[in-house]
Amino acid sequence: MARREFRTLDPPESAHDALAALDLTTGIESVPLADAHGRVLAERVDAPLDVPGFDRAAMDGYAVQAAATFGASEADPATLSIAGAVRAGEAPDVTVASETAVQVATGAVLPPGADAVVPVERTVESESTVEVVTGVAPGDSVTYRGADIAAGDRALGPGTVLGPRHVGLLAALGRERVPVRGRLDVAVVSTGEELVQPGATPDHAAGQIYDVNGHAIGAAVSAAGSRPTHVPRPSDDPDRLEDALADAASEADLVVTSGSTSAGTADRLYGLVEDHGEVLVHGVAIKPGRPLLIGRVFGTPYVGLPGYPVSALSVFRTFVAPALRAATGRPTPETATREATLATRVRYDGGRRRLVAVGVVPDGAGGHVAYAPAKGSGATTTLVETDGVVVMPAETSLLAAGETVTVDLFDETPVPAVLGVGDTDPAFGALFDEASTGRFLARSVDDAVRWFEDDVPDLLVAPTDALDAVAPDPVDRWARTWGLIVPAGSPAEIDGLAALTDVRFANLAESLSLREALDARLADAVEAPERAIDGYHRGLPGIESPARSVAAGRADAGLGLRATAERLGLGFVPIGTQTLGVAVNPDRAGKSSVERVTDRLADRLPDLLAERPGYDPVE
Amino acid sequence: MARREFRTLDPPESAHDALAALDLTTGIESVPLADAHGRVLAERVDAPLDVPGFDRAAMDGYAVQAAATFGASEADPATLSIAGAVRAGEAPDVTVASETAVQVATGAVLPPGADAVVPVERTVESESTVEVVTGVAPGDSVTYRGADIAAGDRALGPGTVLGPRHVGLLAALGRERVPVRGRLDVAVVSTGEELVQPGATPDHAAGQIYDVNGHAIGAAVSAAGSRPTHVPRPSDDPDRLEDALADAASEADLVVTSGSTSAGTADRLYGLVEDHGEVLVHGVAIKPGRPLLIGRVFGTPYVGLPGYPVSALSVFRTFVAPALRAATGRPTPETATREATLATRVRYDGGRRRLVAVGVVPDGAGGHVAYAPAKGSGATTTLVETDGVVVMPAETSLLAAGETVTVDLFDETPVPAVLGVGDTDPAFGALFDEASTGRFLARSVDDAVRWFEDDVPDLLVAPTDALDAVAPDPVDRWARTWGLIVPAGSPAEIDGLAALTDVRFANLAESLSLREALDARLADAVEAPERAIDGYHRGLPGIESPARSVAAGRADAGLGLRATAERLGLGFVPIGTQTLGVAVNPDRAGKSSVERVTDRLADRLPDLLAERPGYDPVE
Repeated sequence: MARREFRTLDPPESAHDALAALDLTTGIESVPLADAHGRVLAERVDAPLDVPGFDRAAMDGYAVQAAATFGASEADPATLSIAGAVRAGEAPDVTVASETAVQVATGAVLPPGADAVVPVERTVESESTVEVVTGVAPGDSVTYRGADIAAGDRALGPGTVLGPRHVGLLAALGRERVPVRGRLDVAVVSTGEELVQPGATPDHAAGQIYDVNGHAIGAAVSAAGSRPTHVPRPSDDPDRLEDALADAASEADLVVTSGSTSAGTADRLYGLVEDHGEVLVHGVAIKPGRPLLIGRVFGTPYVGLPGYPVSALSVFRTFVAPALRAATGRPTPETATREATLATRVRYDGGRRRLVAVGVVPDGAGGHVAYAPAKGSGATTTLVETDGVVVMPAETSLLAAGETVTVDLFDETPVPAVLGVGDTDPAFGALFDEASTGRFLARSVDDAVRWFEDDVPDLLVAPTDALDAVAPDPVDRWARTWGLIVPAGSPAEIDGLAALTDVRFANLAESLSLREALDARLADAVEAPERAIDGYHRGLPGIESPARSVAAGRADAGLGLRATAERLGLGFVPIGTQTLGVAVNPDRAGKSSVERVTDRLADRLPDLLAERPGYDPVE
Repeated sequence: MARREFRTLDPPESAHDALAALDLTTGIESVPLADAHGRVLAERVDAPLDVPGFDRAAMDGYAVQAAATFGASEADPATLSIAGAVRAGEAPDVTVASETAVQVATGAVLPPGADAVVPVERTVESESTVEVVTGVAPGDSVTYRGADIAAGDRALGPGTVLGPRHVGLLAALGRERVPVRGRLDVAVVSTGEELVQPGATPDHAAGQIYDVNGHAIGAAVSAAGSRPTHVPRPSDDPDRLEDALADAASEADLVVTSGSTSAGTADRLYGLVEDHGEVLVHGVAIKPGRPLLIGRVFGTPYVGLPGYPVSALSVFRTFVAPALRAATGRPTPETATREATLATRVRYDGGRRRLVAVGVVPDGAGGHVAYAPAKGSGATTTLVETDGVVVMPAETSLLAAGETVTVDLFDETPVPAVLGVGDTDPAFGALFDEASTGRFLARSVDDAVRWFEDDVPDLLVAPTDALDAVAPDPVDRWARTWGLIVPAGSPAEIDGLAALTDVRFANLAESLSLREALDARLADAVEAPERAIDGYHRGLPGIESPARSVAAGRADAGLGLRATAERLGLGFVPIGTQTLGVAVNPDRAGKSSVERVTDRLADRLPDLLAERPGYDPVE
């Protein structure tokens, strides 16, 4: 297993230069007008005809010779005989003379002889005559041929992103087809022996995982206005990987590989690109993104992305998406960045430029707050716990709290309107989902309280004793019963904490408050539980994890909620009751998204508690 | 032709209420993951499995028992024998003991017995042993099962707009299909006898025009996340209009009619809705938008939009799009509004709320300037000369220049980066298109100079004598030859301006500077030209309009440029030369979009002049 070190890293600018040197280009497509929306106009469009194509009535009323109305007033109206009528879409079959008027609808052709229209509101109609109570001048309430746009005039410039309005103008010019910039065909090749596709069942014992990047990068290609083709994992067998790359290169405008985190696969890819193409950049002084590989393979532009999903998307967003947009004439989206105040400081060793993934939340006063979650770029959940990256220059090792930063958003999906932080609780989770499309970060009580004190989240969920110091008056509180989850119909041996010394136990991680509740009770029941209880030392990460371990037969008893035990059809030995509360950041109480949550708490929490075994309201 | 007056207008809020009362709803669709991007998640998604599904190596290196490395250092390394290797995607076939190490790739299953990974950088490998030069603790460089997300944990909340990152997380959870909010099927029925579809040839004599709204509103429905079906103009014959509405109602979730500006068609629609459904709102105190009709027809929600395209889109944006988004769970796009400083004052009679269409341009200092073009909502080109609307309350009759306004953008297409105003010139137009995707508003010299003085545009194009007062040092200037355009091989009679008294003349409108040049020369050649020259009084709107009149046989001579005459294959009698220049607003000179134009002027103008007959550089 040879490992390649990136001894000389290129500066990030060289990656931009290399992508520009790949000379990605597209042709011009002619699409039907109905498919033109959202595309980029490839050529300037001049009006091929006058709009309107005829002198037309701009109001419902009477077409007249203006001279016939000179001096007319309410007291002394001009009386004209009605010679006929012209509707929109109808050729006039009548001529206007000095003593006549012709009824016209808005949009109708101005009949010959007429030079003005009197709006119907300024007339009094009787059987065969009309009294005009105002004088009009030639051209009044008439839209002349070509007044909107004249044949030969520039209608739309090249590069225009076609929205509904532009589609409307193209329709007004009679365009049935529209020349638009082509899209790049991008082959996204997922590499790595360990990948399986969604829908299949991964063999965890063999280290299989689902292919994340093939799908995420494909969607990012679409978001950048190009067309992805997903090539699911070819075997890492060098010949088959070579065939897969050759096939992709023959059909695509750009080949992107992504997926494996393993250095072995990256080495094979490097070798193939070196043997069958050229390497322009290999290794960039940026974190994440160091393994970025740019070149050509089998004659086609090629980019090799890093394997971790957050790294892959950060690098795609920073280097590849701008190149795709430039090649297809798309401007940088206006939502691409967000100014924010950094609420948590960020420290890193310097030496390389870093793309620090941060989340963003509106601060309720028109600004935004940015925060850096603790999870790293290896965690897939970082993808949805953050909204973009802050670029930290190589020579910097600290971004201080309070600093104003520019967040380069990952994509154009909206930043969550509300941010909750704290303990995982199923009842609150259900309520939060009903009230918002917000983000909830499950964090240890200590971390969550610190973030709350730093004004990061809108809401804090924690045991009430932990809330006392920061928010002694939570907006709501409730109690939940916790204990030992055991197999359904479990023998009666496991009747309390003391029994844990004889069984395989599934504990919770210290980041969940139930673990603290357990430890407080264990102090009286079991001496040195870390040695006495099999499984005590390895806390599991999710509130349902111990129950699921029990259900799967990996443990005999697990720490958890009565609600979880009943939902999963397991047995339950109650140990204690815990009171949780929700505190609202006072600065954010006026945010409408926060109000929706607090309103829901008042309206719906009693029902949600009643639906869940072991939950009770607290006055 | 009965005409209905809107005697009692409902307040705008009632239109929102009526749309809410229509109770537009969609079901849940299950889509393949590949189609989920951009859709709205309908249900909360919990993790069905632990991610990762196994304890895995987080680095390339050696899996060890941490205890075996305690105290190890560069000076005193721990030497372990290499017992085997585990690659990513491979089941371990080896166990780690206290004196052994197993080579692991990032992502590989941690082999049994191991509790930590030593990164390869902290090891020295020889043939069958590895020296570990650092001590590691249990868990170091290991990602525990479920550490990313644990089975049962909330992964994504309902209502999440699915971007590439969310698609990635869904892939990580193995989701092959995704429950998303359905889209509304919206039938867009174009009404009005006068409409023809793009691709057909309109009969101008019969007042036919292209159907604009059917296409623009269809695209706006797509932009709001729903699915349009276009029903091209049914006949206004009441029975056929009724059939068309009944058909549309039977297949769609919402029927929208739009197209005709004529009161007759609006009346027929009103009657049909009254007879076969219910009218909730008819006539709203808003301008444009007064004729807005909301109700149900044949059991299906119905909206009747006003006929003028700008009115239709303004009303759609203000009332209908929010209702479509609410029904399909889409948030208001973050680009929906833009704060701007109003550069031109807007005056209107009060009494109704007004939606004032305005254009927006970046001011070069991080802000935006808004301006209201003179063309009204009847002009299709207003669609692309503006970017959104400013809401002017009923009780206000003036928005003063300098006021800060909120512009509700029509759609998510980008605001043009550069704004030019002034005289139409084909050579400059070609250059502008090469340099930018900017907007150029053709305006009279007087209007353009006033706007330039008011700091509205970035660039001003005008005859140099008009520039003298505001920008005596234009960034570039050039000369163009103008004269009389006559039929190809025209008899020699038309040899100068004096000959115009004997022929049909096609003049230009006063908004084009060539007209002023002509008038200056006519003063010496023809007495009282408005009476002496047939056609003099009716100035045509576009710089090519007179030439096209000559080409079509509607005139014997027309005012225009030598370049136009040659391009259209017509004859030309030179009369004079005019010098034009480009001035840059000093506040905007640093805008990169403006710099691209000025750079192009330096680089490309000589070529563009050389390509065009009658154009010459000016030093």
